[in-house]
Amino acid sequence: MISVLIVGKGNVGSHLYNAFLNVDTINVNQINSRTLENIPKADVTIIAVSDDAITEVSSKITNTFVVHTSGSVALDDLKNQHRKGVFYMLQTFSTDKNVDFSKVPFCLESENKKDLQLLETLAKHLGIKIYAINSEQRKILHVAAVFVNNFTNHLYKIGNDICNDNDVPFEILQPLIEETSEKIKQLSPEKAQTGPAIRNDKKTIKNHLNLLTKKQQNIYTILTESIQNKID
Amino acid sequence: MISVLIVGKGNVGSHLYNAFLNVDTINVNQINSRTLENIPKADVTIIAVSDDAITEVSSKITNTFVVHTSGSVALDDLKNQHRKGVFYMLQTFSTDKNVDFSKVPFCLESENKKDLQLLETLAKHLGIKIYAINSEQRKILHVAAVFVNNFTNHLYKIGNDICNDNDVPFEILQPLIEETSEKIKQLSPEKAQTGPAIRNDKKTIKNHLNLLTKKQQNIYTILTESIQNKID
Repeated sequence: MISVLIVGKGNVGSHLYNAFLNVDTINVNQINSRTLENIPKADVTIIAVSDDAITEVSSKITNTFVVHTSGSVALDDLKNQHRKGVFYMLQTFSTDKNVDFSKVPFCLESENKKDLQLLETLAKHLGIKIYAINSEQRKILHVAAVFVNNFTNHLYKIGNDICNDNDVPFEILQPLIEETSEKIKQLSPEKAQTGPAIRNDKKTIKNHLNLLTKKQQNIYTILTESIQNKID
Repeated sequence: MISVLIVGKGNVGSHLYNAFLNVDTINVNQINSRTLENIPKADVTIIAVSDDAITEVSSKITNTFVVHTSGSVALDDLKNQHRKGVFYMLQTFSTDKNVDFSKVPFCLESENKKDLQLLETLAKHLGIKIYAINSEQRKILHVAAVFVNNFTNHLYKIGNDICNDNDVPFEILQPLIEETSEKIKQLSPEKAQTGPAIRNDKKTIKNHLNLLTKKQQNIYTILTESIQNKID
């Protein structure tokens, strides 16, 4: 039996808590990060709080092995007295949506091999994609994730705005969006690139710019030039 | 029985030809766009050639109803003598990959209602997502598609570059990419926005910029400012 304590009742903490509840060989507890007195002992204490709060919350926990769940916080930012680690799930979690843990990559880090094995055991009870990732690599993944997730979503928003402003239903684009994300499972993004920028189709590019707001034009231009390797 | 002639042997023409071959009530022929003498008569002639060639190819076709398959070419750019229309499929087609036509939006246009019904009949034999879209709306869809498909793919490439340059496997990001595209089926892109830009997490943004090349920094900055509504 492995005992797990989750500190934090936000999205990540609650999804994790519910998932561990279903595992027979794990005994899981969850507490609020604001009530850190007399907290239960546990083999692994998982701090699932906002990035800015990790240092302070960890400094108040005396349990022997403490990990955080953040993509952008280093292992050394944990200020507990004993062993440290990271249990980072590289996925977007929404309150209302169930998490399919078989599709969640677990990025694990610890100070020693035995702790890494313990984290791997935990992760294997939930999912199948498990990686040992150090703090430097995790930072890289986090910034890459901003491009492929946050910025991509913003491009969806611009597409949505363009449709709304011109009375075209955005849903028509949904299958294309899905296919674009599916395609790179088989093809590298470099090889999957299509469109007027890579073809240097100046006439279409000019026509497109005429349909856009100034802000949209700026983004269209910089991304077109980037695809064409015209900027450093 | 509807007779269809496809002019052009590229990706779109060939995928369409193969799909129509499987329909009992359609009699389909396919010819090369460079041999336009003595071409077979047909109820619908579908020109599936590059955008630049549509005007010239259409001017040589004497069949009574001629349509093109382009997202960015207006109906009036067809120069055949008789009836005109558009049979635009808003999806990316690759040579090696089968097309699931049930996921292809058919955007149809014609000069009269009867021709539109004929195009709808054709489209319904292949798929289920069928829209009447005029030339102005189709232009809008095409530029929106550049954002959600071509530019999104370029962001995937940047994510891939960042991973490669730092020896992190890009595949770790694949489930996140998939979830990002799935999410907007349930949530508008505006509501689905997450990340340091929308939170105005200045510390993380600064850390991210330090990890990027100058070109990546430019794109990171303009998209962050756009998410934060700081640019016009």
